[in-house]
Amino acid sequence: MTVKIYGSTKAVCPQRVMHCLFELDVDFQLVPVDLEAGQHKSPPHLAIQPFGKIPYVQDGDFGIYESRAIVRYFAEKYAERNPGLLGRTPEQRALVDQWLYVDAINYDPHVFPIVFNLLILPRMGLPPNPAPAMESAKRLEEVLDIYEAQLSKTKYLAGDEFTLADLTHIPATRFVLEEAGMVSLLEGRENLKAWWVDITSRPAWKKVMQLLRN
Amino acid sequence: MTVKIYGSTKAVCPQRVMHCLFELDVDFQLVPVDLEAGQHKSPPHLAIQPFGKIPYVQDGDFGIYESRAIVRYFAEKYAERNPGLLGRTPEQRALVDQWLYVDAINYDPHVFPIVFNLLILPRMGLPPNPAPAMESAKRLEEVLDIYEAQLSKTKYLAGDEFTLADLTHIPATRFVLEEAGMVSLLEGRENLKAWWVDITSRPAWKKVMQLLRN
Repeated sequence: MTVKIYGSTKAVCPQRVMHCLFELDVDFQLVPVDLEAGQHKSPPHLAIQPFGKIPYVQDGDFGIYESRAIVRYFAEKYAERNPGLLGRTPEQRALVDQWLYVDAINYDPHVFPIVFNLLILPRMGLPPNPAPAMESAKRLEEVLDIYEAQLSKTKYLAGDEFTLADLTHIPATRFVLEEAGMVSLLEGRENLKAWWVDITSRPAWKKVMQLLRN
Repeated sequence: MTVKIYGSTKAVCPQRVMHCLFELDVDFQLVPVDLEAGQHKSPPHLAIQPFGKIPYVQDGDFGIYESRAIVRYFAEKYAERNPGLLGRTPEQRALVDQWLYVDAINYDPHVFPIVFNLLILPRMGLPPNPAPAMESAKRLEEVLDIYEAQLSKTKYLAGDEFTLADLTHIPATRFVLEEAGMVSLLEGRENLKAWWVDITSRPAWKKVMQLLRN
């Protein structure tokens, strides 16, 4: 039975899951959730995702939410198709986990206010609010310095192989660099820049971008 | 070689790791990091934990941070000692992961402002700041309603067995209920209350509380 992703091709967290499924060559069907109409806060959606977020994923009888948990589930289920994604040793796997939590706890909370205040407000017909976005961008710069230091030691965040820890960073980072026009954040951070070019050139990610343009 | 936890017995994230190691009967040594003296922001600590947080854990040659990644690493390494902690099937393991991310993304961000504004500020010699704490408590109540609904269906968050997903919630919740005096959050949420009594009666958690009193 085809995997169903309840979400939107435009949103960060469903993009993570779609990217992962393309990396693993797993077919999926998108069940659209209209964020602008508030469908993610409607009773039928809250019945499957009680926090009112997207995506929710249905794999046969099994339902799950939280994008980083979802990509771990599929990377484990189809491990033979792309065994590097989860990390190959217990220690590598633990570092992949570490960077997934860094993404969730230390990275995303600075990215979200940028996306919300510069991109989501105008989509809702409201004026953008640059002040808090710029405040978050300053904090994000400090985090990017830590990433630059890590990427001067290893090619990818958790080691010398592309893993889920890199994958989960892509969608939100793309919004900041490309849609919010902050590509200058890469300037002076040469390892970060090389990492960004590398991870966004993956065919599986290009398929996500293709869906977005459709 | 004994596991070293760089941290403080008083802080939430090291408490998670200590609890997990007691559950797995793994010896550890605490290397104190003096938060009140700002030692977590000192160059030697930043060299091992670049975000300036605790804990950092050293297991032989292997170093790792982010408490939820650390507990997953040890639960996997010593899986035969407590095989339920991670979940027993791929689906259960995925739900444990889901609730670990719910904790990090939907729960902790409401708990931290309560702990910071009511408990940490006074420790720093500053007056408490109840207004943002109360605002966060209101949002936490909405989250607790979702937990109550889940715990009316399963005994623990990710199913009918105690897992890491329950374990990671304990330290921050204890601060809110017991130290910030918000035990009334359990009132009218009978399943949540039964869960709280159950998970905090575990001998491994009592050992953490014993360390705190020493």
